[in-house]
Amino acid sequence: MGKKVLIAGGGAGGMTAATQIKRQNPDIEVTLFESGSYVSWAGCPTPYYIAGLVGEMSVVHFDAEYFKNDRGIDVYTHTPVELIDFKRKIVSVNGEKIKGEFPYDQLILSLGAKAVVPPIPGLRSDDGKLNEGIFILRDAENAFNIKEYIDKRKVKNALIIGSGFIGLEMAEALTHLGISVTVVEMADGILPMLGTDEQRKKILKSLEANKVALRLGTTVKEIVCCPDGVEAAILSDGTSVPMEFLLVSIGVRPNLSLLEKSGFHAPDGKLIVNENLETGIPDVYALGDMVWTRNLLTGKPVYAPFGDVADKQGLALGGIIAGSPLQFRGVIGSAATSIFEWQIAVTGLNYQAALDNGFDAEKVNVKSLHRIMGFEDTVPGLVNVVYEKNTHRVLGASIVSQSAAAQFIDQFAIAITWGLTLDQLFDVDYAYSPKTSVVWNPILAAYRKALNR
Amino acid sequence: MGKKVLIAGGGAGGMTAATQIKRQNPDIEVTLFESGSYVSWAGCPTPYYIAGLVGEMSVVHFDAEYFKNDRGIDVYTHTPVELIDFKRKIVSVNGEKIKGEFPYDQLILSLGAKAVVPPIPGLRSDDGKLNEGIFILRDAENAFNIKEYIDKRKVKNALIIGSGFIGLEMAEALTHLGISVTVVEMADGILPMLGTDEQRKKILKSLEANKVALRLGTTVKEIVCCPDGVEAAILSDGTSVPMEFLLVSIGVRPNLSLLEKSGFHAPDGKLIVNENLETGIPDVYALGDMVWTRNLLTGKPVYAPFGDVADKQGLALGGIIAGSPLQFRGVIGSAATSIFEWQIAVTGLNYQAALDNGFDAEKVNVKSLHRIMGFEDTVPGLVNVVYEKNTHRVLGASIVSQSAAAQFIDQFAIAITWGLTLDQLFDVDYAYSPKTSVVWNPILAAYRKALNR
Repeated sequence: MGKKVLIAGGGAGGMTAATQIKRQNPDIEVTLFESGSYVSWAGCPTPYYIAGLVGEMSVVHFDAEYFKNDRGIDVYTHTPVELIDFKRKIVSVNGEKIKGEFPYDQLILSLGAKAVVPPIPGLRSDDGKLNEGIFILRDAENAFNIKEYIDKRKVKNALIIGSGFIGLEMAEALTHLGISVTVVEMADGILPMLGTDEQRKKILKSLEANKVALRLGTTVKEIVCCPDGVEAAILSDGTSVPMEFLLVSIGVRPNLSLLEKSGFHAPDGKLIVNENLETGIPDVYALGDMVWTRNLLTGKPVYAPFGDVADKQGLALGGIIAGSPLQFRGVIGSAATSIFEWQIAVTGLNYQAALDNGFDAEKVNVKSLHRIMGFEDTVPGLVNVVYEKNTHRVLGASIVSQSAAAQFIDQFAIAITWGLTLDQLFDVDYAYSPKTSVVWNPILAAYRKALNR
Repeated sequence: MGKKVLIAGGGAGGMTAATQIKRQNPDIEVTLFESGSYVSWAGCPTPYYIAGLVGEMSVVHFDAEYFKNDRGIDVYTHTPVELIDFKRKIVSVNGEKIKGEFPYDQLILSLGAKAVVPPIPGLRSDDGKLNEGIFILRDAENAFNIKEYIDKRKVKNALIIGSGFIGLEMAEALTHLGISVTVVEMADGILPMLGTDEQRKKILKSLEANKVALRLGTTVKEIVCCPDGVEAAILSDGTSVPMEFLLVSIGVRPNLSLLEKSGFHAPDGKLIVNENLETGIPDVYALGDMVWTRNLLTGKPVYAPFGDVADKQGLALGGIIAGSPLQFRGVIGSAATSIFEWQIAVTGLNYQAALDNGFDAEKVNVKSLHRIMGFEDTVPGLVNVVYEKNTHRVLGASIVSQSAAAQFIDQFAIAITWGLTLDQLFDVDYAYSPKTSVVWNPILAAYRKALNR
């Protein structure tokens, strides 16, 4: 028999690791314990599932049986890992179908993150649970609950706390369902990772046009709630917003409860893994939303709780466990979303972040086009490119456009990860056709501007 | 006063060079002679102009006056350069408004290409001109003539000789106008640069669904013509195709007439320029469709008559003339088009070309998605990736998809130009959002397949 690998947590990271181990070495015994009802769920599509734009399949791809039968992975849902004995290399589980102590040769932790819920009066009931009509959106189970509640209660008015990617995606999703949406944001602006205010204005105008009420520089003071569910929010400016649905979406923090309960306390509450996804505890690996990784541009530890990062970490860790020389080197800060007609994508450092990190940064704004002007529906996007003044090395880029924003930003991401300069990117032979691309694409346009500066 | 730069030819390459020289050094005197009626015309959008999808502005951006007044470039249309005296560094021009001998310090040749017209009986009249109703499509003037002819003669049936990118783009354009189109192709298949037959099948099915009659392995034996224009084509299989419009689109060859008339004969008829766009004749530079450049992957000379290549060469040459250390290093074979619902993009070498060039090549097929499956209108595209077996260095890629084909292929083009491997591309932090991208994008999907092979 091969070695025994136990995995705690069946989200993107854990499941991809399990699959990759088995792909590379079917002799390794892989057992996965998941506390919830689903494994292999995808968090990112949940707003689109709630909007009715994609089905359940897009949120939960496969069930436990599939992994057992098709991939040879022992998967147990409703089976929380309760304690880890790092010395004896044993985990205690307490599941519906399985209980007891299980030894491991290697242990993978993929326990995800917890939503941050602020201490606003009226959010929680006495037992600590969120009051009726108040939700977070982290996983498939949350999404199913939200959809069911919205349908059952025929929600007409919703409040979202937080204007991050998920907050805005949910604002769009709820609007799509005919629900009036108010977004409350503590900061004075939105999307700080974008490179220019002009880009932000496109999004602000679109939110307004789509009747999303955005309350900037505002906090929620109190929730009026119950017994029949949430009723209204009292805001910091004294106004009251009536609603039947409230989403708290102000960020997440790593779920380190099991580690702490088992006696391991990460310094500063940050479990930082190395390129081999090692935790520092012998034979214990971790990945996904529960870990910090490294920013490849700054060399600093960074928290990047994204599904695609977890998936890639899973692939790398699967290889590492199965004996391949794979690694997960880190991130540079790439992210994408879309808000109504606009696609948003960012990578690397924006101008301010570049300066803050000691780079001699320069910035340039260019247009993004996925076809030549002249075609009726060609709407120019806005691109901001940040580069090192002397070397022209690319440091960051952001795009707000109606097309191919993520595909363009990935071109910059390749350049940034591998240290390419705008001059080197000029040497690249790009593909041009008037209906699907332009000669002076964002990269070449930025190069030309940097050159003629 | 600064030095005198003369430019022969006002297409993309010449005009961009002129503009860039002036941007970098307004003291340089730039005079440009163009034999035709237009400068700064764009050849690539002409099919879409003929289809009525874009206006005249997309084909001819600016007129001679604009360049004179706004950019300080002396532009003369209807002014062919008749002879060059390389020793005395003088050109003779014979224009409508300007005639005589003009000295140069540096001379840029941007004389483009001529369409290849095969010796088919009936194609040309006794004076050597194409008979009425028979066209080539090289420049704005051709496009205006075609559009006028189609309108005036109410063309119902058209024949296109050649199924290259322009032949197929014109098939789509004419179909869009309600014209019945037959495409005659000598070879047994289409689009040899694509990586797989499956990709080609998508295009073949689409041509069929759009009622374009494709006659593979067939040539035109004779044109039945005149006096009232073209009437029919007799094909090699003995059939006759009646039509009122014929486009010859089987390729182009460098226009070297002026060079030859002036006593310079390029070896093998190929004017190969170096990285500084030098011809080998002192102080004479050339660019665009009249020159051969270098394939960066194979190191071999290659003919790449594309508008975007000419534009980039123009920018580089402008810098070189103005004293900047710019260069145009070459191409890798990137190209794009779209045929009905399908976008097509290629870069680098396909599998066979990689083998032919001595690479230990491997290939892999993956899906291309610009959003997750589950959204109603998500149609998976087909991607073929070619890489070096041992190193995983990327050598080529081709995509047939309904979205972002060129933007994806440009990611591969960056990797190929800078010698990146699939493993190195795994280290890139890509931007993911379900509505605008996928986790396992074509690059990561290819890496995973290569890894698990």
